[in-house]
Amino acid sequence: MNMTSTNPGIVDIASRLIACPSVTPARGEVFAVLETLLVPLGFTVDRFVAGQEPDGPVENLLAWRTTGAGPHFAFAGHLDVVPPGNGWTSDPFTPDIRGGLLHGRGAVDMKGAIAAFVAALAGIPDELPGTISLIITGDEEGPAVHGTLALMERMAAHGLRPDLCLVGEPTSSQRLGDVIKIGRRGSVNMWIKVEGVQGHVAYPHLADNPVPRLVRILSAIDGIVLDEGTDWFQPSNIEITDLEVGNPATNVIPAAAHARISIRFNDRHSGASLVERITAIASAEGGVVTAKISGEPFLTQPGSLSGLVAGAIREVTGVEAELSTTGGTSDARFLSRLCPVVEFGLNNGTMHKLDEAVAIDDLKDLERIYALIVRRALGG
Amino acid sequence: MNMTSTNPGIVDIASRLIACPSVTPARGEVFAVLETLLVPLGFTVDRFVAGQEPDGPVENLLAWRTTGAGPHFAFAGHLDVVPPGNGWTSDPFTPDIRGGLLHGRGAVDMKGAIAAFVAALAGIPDELPGTISLIITGDEEGPAVHGTLALMERMAAHGLRPDLCLVGEPTSSQRLGDVIKIGRRGSVNMWIKVEGVQGHVAYPHLADNPVPRLVRILSAIDGIVLDEGTDWFQPSNIEITDLEVGNPATNVIPAAAHARISIRFNDRHSGASLVERITAIASAEGGVVTAKISGEPFLTQPGSLSGLVAGAIREVTGVEAELSTTGGTSDARFLSRLCPVVEFGLNNGTMHKLDEAVAIDDLKDLERIYALIVRRALGG
Ligand SMILES: [Zn+2]
Ligand SMILES: [Zn+2]
Repeated sequence: MNMTSTNPGIVDIASRLIACPSVTPARGEVFAVLETLLVPLGFTVDRFVAGQEPDGPVENLLAWRTTGAGPHFAFAGHLDVVPPGNGWTSDPFTPDIRGGLLHGRGAVDMKGAIAAFVAALAGIPDELPGTISLIITGDEEGPAVHGTLALMERMAAHGLRPDLCLVGEPTSSQRLGDVIKIGRRGSVNMWIKVEGVQGHVAYPHLADNPVPRLVRILSAIDGIVLDEGTDWFQPSNIEITDLEVGNPATNVIPAAAHARISIRFNDRHSGASLVERITAIASAEGGVVTAKISGEPFLTQPGSLSGLVAGAIREVTGVEAELSTTGGTSDARFLSRLCPVVEFGLNNGTMHKLDEAVAIDDLKDLERIYALIVRRALGG
Repeated sequence: MNMTSTNPGIVDIASRLIACPSVTPARGEVFAVLETLLVPLGFTVDRFVAGQEPDGPVENLLAWRTTGAGPHFAFAGHLDVVPPGNGWTSDPFTPDIRGGLLHGRGAVDMKGAIAAFVAALAGIPDELPGTISLIITGDEEGPAVHGTLALMERMAAHGLRPDLCLVGEPTSSQRLGDVIKIGRRGSVNMWIKVEGVQGHVAYPHLADNPVPRLVRILSAIDGIVLDEGTDWFQPSNIEITDLEVGNPATNVIPAAAHARISIRFNDRHSGASLVERITAIASAEGGVVTAKISGEPFLTQPGSLSGLVAGAIREVTGVEAELSTTGGTSDARFLSRLCPVVEFGLNNGTMHKLDEAVAIDDLKDLERIYALIVRRALGG
């Protein structure tokens, strides 16, 4: 079955998705639109809701189409968007084409890419042996606790495990195809608390000022060089992001002092190893550390997957993609536990900004690139 | 004229003053009570209001009695009291005698001492040559900008300049007479601000985190040893009293970081020299310092005045007074510009606390001590 001629075009698909105001966490309508697009292409669609307050509930969609034995290639992405904010030229949830650009919240991050998934798949002959799946969450921009992780459990329950995965995050920087992400740094935040004994500045011997101890801790932390970077990662980095004592009285020695640090780290470290290291420094001065690891780092070593994606980009656009590991975390950190994962998608210049927009030419090129990737991943 | 027989007793005087709710800044009634007590003793009384919002207006009272040429001895003090707070056993502004103690806000700090001034002066023969003055402010516990300083200007306008001054602050610690203050440390607060460039923790090269620079400044400040103390002063001391960044976002590098320090310093330093020193340290890291000098240090070298006071204490109570420079600032820091100043008064155990109270025996002894001091100061 080849339904290309009767399928909606990519601009139409992207517009239908943008028209659903799916501020994170996405629910309902936008998933229904996607389901309606996938079912005619022969996909089995499993929509489900996961999680409870405060990080849920979250709606997710898993779709797959298996044609005999063969590789399993997965597209992954999210249908939730960040809040649009005020000041848009046109309504953020009314898709609007001006000057060759399709405007709307999610145009590049990442309903445009999901539209490209669908449009590309509409053109893939269903006789190619193997499995194609879509791993689509409604919560990537939020806590992301009941999104991709829940989808991975759902896949396992269906006996599905991808061999290759492409996450359609907007990785392109200046031109479509110039950047493929092959990894992401990990991220951990830590809260440091030092307690002392409150008192009057005129009688310091009766008090124990926690601030100098916190300063010594932060001084030691500021002196840490975690690494010099690796072949694929920039150096891991520590930032002190907050200080707080909250003492309005000029003549009072405070009882406690607080700091917060944020570490973005490469695959030389784990969240746990960093927490241990900072805790040792803080403990030496009587400080206590609370940590939240938002993501472990991952790296898909450059190889067949990145080569496949870079080749498809080169063929469609002539652009030579750079392999990068910069930027924040993404759900690829979860999917990398299953198989090699790369991220490649639209230009990120307007993501999370007012008047988010995608070039229609880029949408069409991305559809062609994704289609090439899927065909070749399935050995076509 | 000797009016002892017809004058009210010290307990009565103290009670009348306590009965006026003169929470800082004191105004009106409490000054009228004092004036009514002083006029019959032959004092000229000049009551005036000084200053504007926000540090004024403040009511003050200057009184003096001159009998020919001779030394000028001044008593100084304040009629304002700190707020009583809740939880008193008896009403804070209804003087109440229980178990030999007179209870009420201001009983020791320092309406009891002002009552002792008056009672002592009532017993001083007015033929002793010289001048006796009372320098009484309604704002010592508050900003103290338009109190004793305004009184000093007023004295100058009247051609009055004391040769010796006793401030009746509650200096006694365990027993009446055990501590005379011959000096006070200076006090300065400084606010340090370091500005940077806000950014995202994932892109530190696009930001300039001000926190490590503030940490370096504070680390340098924490390493300062101002001095090892002097014969009469304990070591000068720096406390970091507050830190503030105010950044709720864990992934944001903040734009600015703030700290506040408080320095209590002896006569090896001046407020200005310390501001200069901290400013140099902060400037090296791009920090900016704002300072408020609350008081310069003063020292009345142990000598005739402290000897006179200690002798009177010894004679009345048998206690050997210690000469001290501890504690916070007092208005003596201003008066020390005019002449030798010491501070001596009641037990400070309950000052600024609930159920502030003075032993009636202490009031009577203090009256005798003050009377001896004045007689001897005037050569009697
Ligand atoms: Zn995204
Ligand atoms: Zn006082």
